[in-house]
Amino acid sequence: MFAIWFLIGAALVFFMQCGFAMVESGFTRAKSAGNIIMKNLMDFCIGSVVFMFLGFGLMMSQDYVAGIIGIPNLGIFTDYGNFDYSNFVFQLVFCATAATIVSGAMAERTKFSAYCIYSGTISAVVYPIEAGWIWNENGWLNQLGFVDFAGSAVIHTVGGTSALIGAIVVGARIGKYSKTKSGKVKSNAIPGHSLTLGALGVFILWFGWYGFNGAAATTIESLGSIFLTTTLAAGAATVVCMILTWIKDGKPDVGMCLNASLAGLVAITAPCASVDAIGALIIGLVAGVLVDVVVEFLDKKLHIDDPVGAVGVHMANGIWGTLSVGLFATGTGKGAFVDGSGMAGLFYGGGFKLLGIQALGVGAVVLYTIVTMTIVFLVIKHTIGLRASAEDEIVGMDISEHGLSSAYADFMSTTPSYNGEVAEETVDLTDVEPVNLTLGAKAEGKFTKITIICPENKFGILRDTMDSIGVTGMTVSQVMGCGVEKGHVGRYKGVPTSMNLYPKVKVEIVVSTVDPGLVVAAAQKAIGTEHRGSGKIFVSDIEDIMRVRTGETGYDAMRD
Amino acid sequence: MFAIWFLIGAALVFFMQCGFAMVESGFTRAKSAGNIIMKNLMDFCIGSVVFMFLGFGLMMSQDYVAGIIGIPNLGIFTDYGNFDYSNFVFQLVFCATAATIVSGAMAERTKFSAYCIYSGTISAVVYPIEAGWIWNENGWLNQLGFVDFAGSAVIHTVGGTSALIGAIVVGARIGKYSKTKSGKVKSNAIPGHSLTLGALGVFILWFGWYGFNGAAATTIESLGSIFLTTTLAAGAATVVCMILTWIKDGKPDVGMCLNASLAGLVAITAPCASVDAIGALIIGLVAGVLVDVVVEFLDKKLHIDDPVGAVGVHMANGIWGTLSVGLFATGTGKGAFVDGSGMAGLFYGGGFKLLGIQALGVGAVVLYTIVTMTIVFLVIKHTIGLRASAEDEIVGMDISEHGLSSAYADFMSTTPSYNGEVAEETVDLTDVEPVNLTLGAKAEGKFTKITIICPENKFGILRDTMDSIGVTGMTVSQVMGCGVEKGHVGRYKGVPTSMNLYPKVKVEIVVSTVDPGLVVAAAQKAIGTEHRGSGKIFVSDIEDIMRVRTGETGYDAMRD
Amino acid sequence: MFAIWFLIGAALVFFMQCGFAMVESGFTRAKSAGNIIMKNLMDFCIGSVVFMFLGFGLMMSQDYVAGIIGIPNLGIFTDYGNFDYSNFVFQLVFCATAATIVSGAMAERTKFSAYCIYSGTISAVVYPIEAGWIWNENGWLNQLGFVDFAGSAVIHTVGGTSALIGAIVVGARIGKYSKTKSGKVKSNAIPGHSLTLGALGVFILWFGWYGFNGAAATTIESLGSIFLTTTLAAGAATVVCMILTWIKDGKPDVGMCLNASLAGLVAITAPCASVDAIGALIIGLVAGVLVDVVVEFLDKKLHIDDPVGAVGVHMANGIWGTLSVGLFATGTGKGAFVDGSGMAGLFYGGGFKLLGIQALGVGAVVLYTIVTMTIVFLVIKHTIGLRASAEDEIVGMDISEHGLSSAYADFMSTTPSYNGEVAEETVDLTDVEPVNLTLGAKAEGKFTKITIICPENKFGILRDTMDSIGVTGMTVSQVMGCGVEKGHVGRYKGVPTSMNLYPKVKVEIVVSTVDPGLVVAAAQKAIGTEHRGSGKIFVSDIEDIMRVRTGETGYDAMRD
Repeated sequence: MFAIWFLIGAALVFFMQCGFAMVESGFTRAKSAGNIIMKNLMDFCIGSVVFMFLGFGLMMSQDYVAGIIGIPNLGIFTDYGNFDYSNFVFQLVFCATAATIVSGAMAERTKFSAYCIYSGTISAVVYPIEAGWIWNENGWLNQLGFVDFAGSAVIHTVGGTSALIGAIVVGARIGKYSKTKSGKVKSNAIPGHSLTLGALGVFILWFGWYGFNGAAATTIESLGSIFLTTTLAAGAATVVCMILTWIKDGKPDVGMCLNASLAGLVAITAPCASVDAIGALIIGLVAGVLVDVVVEFLDKKLHIDDPVGAVGVHMANGIWGTLSVGLFATGTGKGAFVDGSGMAGLFYGGGFKLLGIQALGVGAVVLYTIVTMTIVFLVIKHTIGLRASAEDEIVGMDISEHGLSSAYADFMSTTPSYNGEVAEETVDLTDVEPVNLTLGAKAEGKFTKITIICPENKFGILRDTMDSIGVTGMTVSQVMGCGVEKGHVGRYKGVPTSMNLYPKVKVEIVVSTVDPGLVVAAAQKAIGTEHRGSGKIFVSDIEDIMRVRTGETGYDAMRD
Repeated sequence: MFAIWFLIGAALVFFMQCGFAMVESGFTRAKSAGNIIMKNLMDFCIGSVVFMFLGFGLMMSQDYVAGIIGIPNLGIFTDYGNFDYSNFVFQLVFCATAATIVSGAMAERTKFSAYCIYSGTISAVVYPIEAGWIWNENGWLNQLGFVDFAGSAVIHTVGGTSALIGAIVVGARIGKYSKTKSGKVKSNAIPGHSLTLGALGVFILWFGWYGFNGAAATTIESLGSIFLTTTLAAGAATVVCMILTWIKDGKPDVGMCLNASLAGLVAITAPCASVDAIGALIIGLVAGVLVDVVVEFLDKKLHIDDPVGAVGVHMANGIWGTLSVGLFATGTGKGAFVDGSGMAGLFYGGGFKLLGIQALGVGAVVLYTIVTMTIVFLVIKHTIGLRASAEDEIVGMDISEHGLSSAYADFMSTTPSYNGEVAEETVDLTDVEPVNLTLGAKAEGKFTKITIICPENKFGILRDTMDSIGVTGMTVSQVMGCGVEKGHVGRYKGVPTSMNLYPKVKVEIVVSTVDPGLVVAAAQKAIGTEHRGSGKIFVSDIEDIMRVRTGETGYDAMRD
Repeated sequence: MFAIWFLIGAALVFFMQCGFAMVESGFTRAKSAGNIIMKNLMDFCIGSVVFMFLGFGLMMSQDYVAGIIGIPNLGIFTDYGNFDYSNFVFQLVFCATAATIVSGAMAERTKFSAYCIYSGTISAVVYPIEAGWIWNENGWLNQLGFVDFAGSAVIHTVGGTSALIGAIVVGARIGKYSKTKSGKVKSNAIPGHSLTLGALGVFILWFGWYGFNGAAATTIESLGSIFLTTTLAAGAATVVCMILTWIKDGKPDVGMCLNASLAGLVAITAPCASVDAIGALIIGLVAGVLVDVVVEFLDKKLHIDDPVGAVGVHMANGIWGTLSVGLFATGTGKGAFVDGSGMAGLFYGGGFKLLGIQALGVGAVVLYTIVTMTIVFLVIKHTIGLRASAEDEIVGMDISEHGLSSAYADFMSTTPSYNGEVAEETVDLTDVEPVNLTLGAKAEGKFTKITIICPENKFGILRDTMDSIGVTGMTVSQVMGCGVEKGHVGRYKGVPTSMNLYPKVKVEIVVSTVDPGLVVAAAQKAIGTEHRGSGKIFVSDIEDIMRVRTGETGYDAMRD
């Protein structure tokens, strides 16, 4: 009755779509949460349609040409009575997994229309062709004895490599990298908006992975062993990553450990049916180190912005997992689906043969993906455009792409999310004259409070400008501005949202030695636009001030 | 071993309770999140108890009278050794699904006690009777050859129709509809508090639906085909809804697409075992359009407030799915549980016979549900009452029904949620005299800030009142008021919460041409009550002001 | 094909790790959400490693000494070809469940390093030994005929008892209990940060429990009956708890009802395969009452701080469930794994024999756990330390243990979470002199606003101090302070977060009769530290004030 289990496994793999949606939304910002959900939903739905019409045939057709590509016969429509329903569902959910990996790496700045096109292309053409090489029994890699039981290469390497190409072509999010005064590029952390959502996704993925790795098993021994190796590799990867980050950074890193669990799962995907407990343990240990090294190298050295770590998890560990078969395969043939005809790996007395085949296979997959996806992304970039406008990106993809005012309408957002987003701009203050305020020029011993109400996306430039004129502190809070101005018109399930309250930032600055008129003038220069809703500045009197730490009052409390 | 799968499927259907809880809480407001969770939890738990004592017998008894109703024999207690455990669990989880659909449409304003009663009545009597007609082999519709493999009519049409009746009888949420000055009714969007939670629920439901549709299959071919048709219909519905909203509103709507996935799943529920891939595709395409049309028609034309779209998803598509069997059934009998004895649908050469039976069946179910549920809701309305008081509704069902201060105790809520909630009230300002403030009458060139601290639910009326006296802008923020006043006493797992901080709104208004004394007097009129905690108003001096866009200062900055 | 179901069941039990993570994070505070996620992740991962090397052998070895302990043979490494893969995975996921129960009871104040050690010790030694007594066929309790089909004693009693010992040894969270003026200890509610997350966890656990209780079944009748008894007990427990809290507190308690569902599931875990529907119903009813009584008794009488209710759910109901077998076992042997050889319970004509065995067994398990875990916790306490520093606890475990600035970076947190946290401190104001403010001594009819910006963790002491000098009201809001001061350095996936904005509290107080200079001086005394970032105090003039309720202005508005 493995036929039923095969379908239960497929349902579990479908459930991984939920896991990906949660991981990707949790590890990116709230202002694009609806967009990333929509992308994860649509890659499966668009994928279903195109895979039915084209992809399934390219991959699985009996009429397979030269070991490279199938000729679609559309049997699903023409001969439904004899169609292999289960296999179609099974292949579809795996295909959708490959497609969904990419969205995380390109999150928060990719146009939704561009997403629909490249995601559909992956499901219709890119994935099915290379997957046929490996999983169609007439595929050239299959014929060579290449082993990829559940898809470290077929799915994760393809998804992860596409993610890498996509992240490079689309470029980093605004504010992710900034130049320091010494001219070096600095990587800024942009924390995800919900770690618990991300963790939920990881647990769901791990749960679904028992179906992912196990669905194709055909004996109970094989299935039991797959469950065991899958569990051990993920556990070992997570533990070693915890120890590594603890030693390296002084504290165990939660986000990286969640990535490490996924890394271990990706790595064990190819060899899950071919290795023993020791092999699984070592594969997991390497995966846990690899994900940390690759994620940091990509971010800190190459300055490629991959918000969720898709390249480190899926590409690096997809390759490692595929190669690991050539090292640790026991050769006793526990595998069932594609088991390398019992060839053993290097460390199990099989010599370099299987390792060579594995290297050839994964190399071909990487090369193929780089070529095809570079073409796909460049064509999109130079036609409809790949990247959202800077304004759309700063305001968030939810409102700009979907008219969704907020994925969390009842919660107040905090300010650090737009920290540094405009860090590359500077304001030229050379021609700025102090405003002549009613209260006259600054007087000795007088304290003035300047309250600035402005749009959220102006905070970064305002802060930097204030810093440059000698303001040493400010208090920032989130408020709602209610006025006659018009902002974005939102829409929720087809009904316009009556947004007569717009989110604003309130910045309060108290100055003594700095001329209040200069503060006002510089602030206006920094945040002013020609649009309504640019903000207002209020000036009022403060009678006295105390610095709590020292107890100094008056002028002394302001010095620093 | 379909017997094991039957139970695994039942577990998956149970898991859909989680999906419903997440969808319904995510798509409603944070202030009632605990309440909607509690309702979703209790419909299953109360349902379990009453279904055991009464419902199961009414539905499944061998002693079935006139094809209409069973005579309960309580075999679960009297003859446990020979009881059909699996079937009981299976029928129970399906019953609970029907019951849980209603809570979403009546969310945020229905009394919890009323909910317990009508939910229990659905599980004990309403659902079991009509379900017996169709799924008891002696039921009159079953005998006619009516096909509803997994419950488009049995479960979704009943749940969705009950939701419609309930939404009508209980009325719209305060603030959902308002009258414009021209006397037309305007529908206001009330966004849900967590789109990610809603999306999580949709993914869980889709995952569970493989059990929902597949559990009763008895051959692997049938099961595989069910998985395939289920997937295709849901995917097609979602894609067409994306395209439709993109064309119609200019942007693809996330919330509506999530609803469309569910719509496709509901529609394919009856025909999942009887149609081929083309049929499934068309059924899904229609479902994706239908849900959008019905949700908007209900909201914008009929002004029936269904916060989660239960009527559009479950009723409209339940009916469509049931009828679709009569159009697309292949007649080759892949169905297993109730398969219409191999009758083909209209488009597959079977003529109108099956379509007629399907129309008769779903018509009977709709009519039966309208009659019984109208009685149930009206009896509740005129005895213990169906709807919460306006005060309870505005403050939120969590605190008023469960003493739960907040389902999200650590997060600050934002203000738009009470936008317009009191839109129907107006304040009569004819007898209002400006307050004689210490700072004397308004002087030329003088700017005064009025700071109003008041309860959240007074914000709408305050804003409208300020508008009517010529105030052109205000800044709103969420604060906590700490004082000697007493508010609601909260309780968390039995322990009173020491709430000496109460959420308040701080509204700051700066005026120049408007008399500050009038602002204070009008505000007091608007927000004043005889209760402690009505708020305070502070008046202070502003020395100068600048409008950022134009650079105007002083009086000019205030004009608009 | 129960062999496949056995593994599917194991996957469902793994998924319960997700449920525990969601329940425990949802029912604790946001500032430690990342930490509790990390603990839940690591108990499984560390547990996998140590169970493989040691625990599995201690528990399941064929070479079992004196019915008490197994001699590990490391067959997983030495003889992988003949290893029982499925059984290992099955035992591992159950072991991890026992380990994960403890973290909730000790949440928000236990050092992460200490957690790793005690959690690993449970999985490596403590659990495997007692589990072997019961589930190894050579174990002494197994030989006696002790019945614990799915682990009420083996898993839940051990986990719950460990949780109790841990909660006692580590002590209550700061602010959980405070002394009233009359010297009595008062329990303060500390609400969890996300009820929906907690509810999600409960639903996931319930879903997973069908695997937990059912995985070991070997006949379809037994499996069906297990599904039925499991469902009924959980449903009945929830309903009775709703009624109980409704009567007792006037309103049905959401959090407690969610706990009651788990309580019913825990209680039915041992007897699930041995009782009939009536038995399951009564077992559930008792569980629903028991959890409420124990949770409140522990909190209100014993003043033991168990944030998630682990002791009430797992220990109390683990014991009750184990004993209930001795009362309700039908003796007809539906059980499959360990079924008490058909002995009937007291109420089913079997006399006291089985009840005696059950009492002996669960007593032995409780005693064993108390002894071993007390040793474990005390050794940790006196070596590396069990509890985090007060400063780390107040700022939250996320930043202090993991360098994670916030698990919810985009959301603004609210203030009530630090209510009362420093309630045990008092400030000695005897030597405080009013500060000589620029505006001179307080004058009749003059209103002064004092604005205090300070770190969040100083709010409680500030509020109490203000209260003691006669301040009758204040307005509190959450702001971000931006200055030259340095705070904690955060880290997100290895990249330092550029946190130049630090969360602060802004407290605004308007006084008339109270000397503003005294307010400033007392505030400084209350919140001052020698660290940078202690805050600032601003003094400004208010021209007038109105109490909204009465319409009083000026001085009259300030009296109370």
